[in-house]
Amino acid sequence: MRLRNVKNAKEIVGNSSYVINNPMEYKGKYNKLFNNGNPICLEIGMGKGDFIINMAIKYPNINFMGIEKYQSILVRAIEKLGDLELSNLKLICMDARDLDSVFSKEIDTIYLNFSDPWPKTRHAKRRLTSSTFLPIYDKVFKSTKRIVQKTDNTGLFEFSIVSLSNYGYIINNVSLDLHSTEMDNVMTEYERKFSSKGVKINYLEAIKK
Amino acid sequence: MRLRNVKNAKEIVGNSSYVINNPMEYKGKYNKLFNNGNPICLEIGMGKGDFIINMAIKYPNINFMGIEKYQSILVRAIEKLGDLELSNLKLICMDARDLDSVFSKEIDTIYLNFSDPWPKTRHAKRRLTSSTFLPIYDKVFKSTKRIVQKTDNTGLFEFSIVSLSNYGYIINNVSLDLHSTEMDNVMTEYERKFSSKGVKINYLEAIKK
Repeated sequence: MRLRNVKNAKEIVGNSSYVINNPMEYKGKYNKLFNNGNPICLEIGMGKGDFIINMAIKYPNINFMGIEKYQSILVRAIEKLGDLELSNLKLICMDARDLDSVFSKEIDTIYLNFSDPWPKTRHAKRRLTSSTFLPIYDKVFKSTKRIVQKTDNTGLFEFSIVSLSNYGYIINNVSLDLHSTEMDNVMTEYERKFSSKGVKINYLEAIKK
Repeated sequence: MRLRNVKNAKEIVGNSSYVINNPMEYKGKYNKLFNNGNPICLEIGMGKGDFIINMAIKYPNINFMGIEKYQSILVRAIEKLGDLELSNLKLICMDARDLDSVFSKEIDTIYLNFSDPWPKTRHAKRRLTSSTFLPIYDKVFKSTKRIVQKTDNTGLFEFSIVSLSNYGYIINNVSLDLHSTEMDNVMTEYERKFSSKGVKINYLEAIKK
């Protein structure tokens, strides 16, 4: 995603009621923060927030958390939220590598939408479905581990199937053309743009017990 | 595949030295038939034989067996073989449902090339990667189970990933566009025809220990 410098990004992020600025304090206690026992679903790399915001609106009985590495992108999601009051949505500006410092056995589903494909083989370990990240995810999942991925990048998709499968995940659902199915699908901004150009969206759901 | 009535098919199949007409007699003893301890790889639905014949030529230290349900198709492979003398190739006219009557713990790899996709949901059990067939394959594999599939049919490919994964297979290698990779690939007649028209070939290798 193109990074654009946003004036006052730090201030906007710091002042938003959606953003948790001291996330380590809530480790293992996010259900208390949400004040309910509903499932907590996490999007890693939420970007400008279209997916996680619309999921939070569509499913009020699920708690959604979005993490994003860059403040300058997170601020776009905050702007989109505007006056919306969604009690089931929280955002954190953080790196996915630190997930297990921030969460502990409390996540139901991890969403990976159009993650950076890191196409060069020497960067494979940076892909969010690589063996760098899967052990970290293990620590934050509550019980059954569930990863849902969408991508238009064939290389990343092939890599994910093999990596998840070798790590003990069962590939429970696959589509090589998500928009041709009748599956419930909340689109990201990127997805709307590229699928309108005829790009096919790959989808998988992987489960590990 | 289009079935064309072939005159004398029964006679040609019956007289070919490549065809085993009494396969049940060799159950568990195919290495004796080949007179060596080399791995035995099996193609289910070998059609007109391009793949299995060229594999047998390319890999003389592997034994290849092809099964085909229809005599009228098998006869085309026999015609192709002509005067070729391949001691590492045998063919059987049979239905895949009977595999465990004919083989026992002796197959290293099963190849499924451009199998009938049976696109209707009510026919899903007829697909060669369905739960109808996976338990049968279990009985014929020697030790590590290895299934290699190629198909241009997206629905069959998606189904296979999910079915194999749920049955305990690890999806060890995947390509959504086999011909764009540098993987070693012996083509079928169908594959040559359709890939020349720009159709992408899906590929997977699944392993179960």
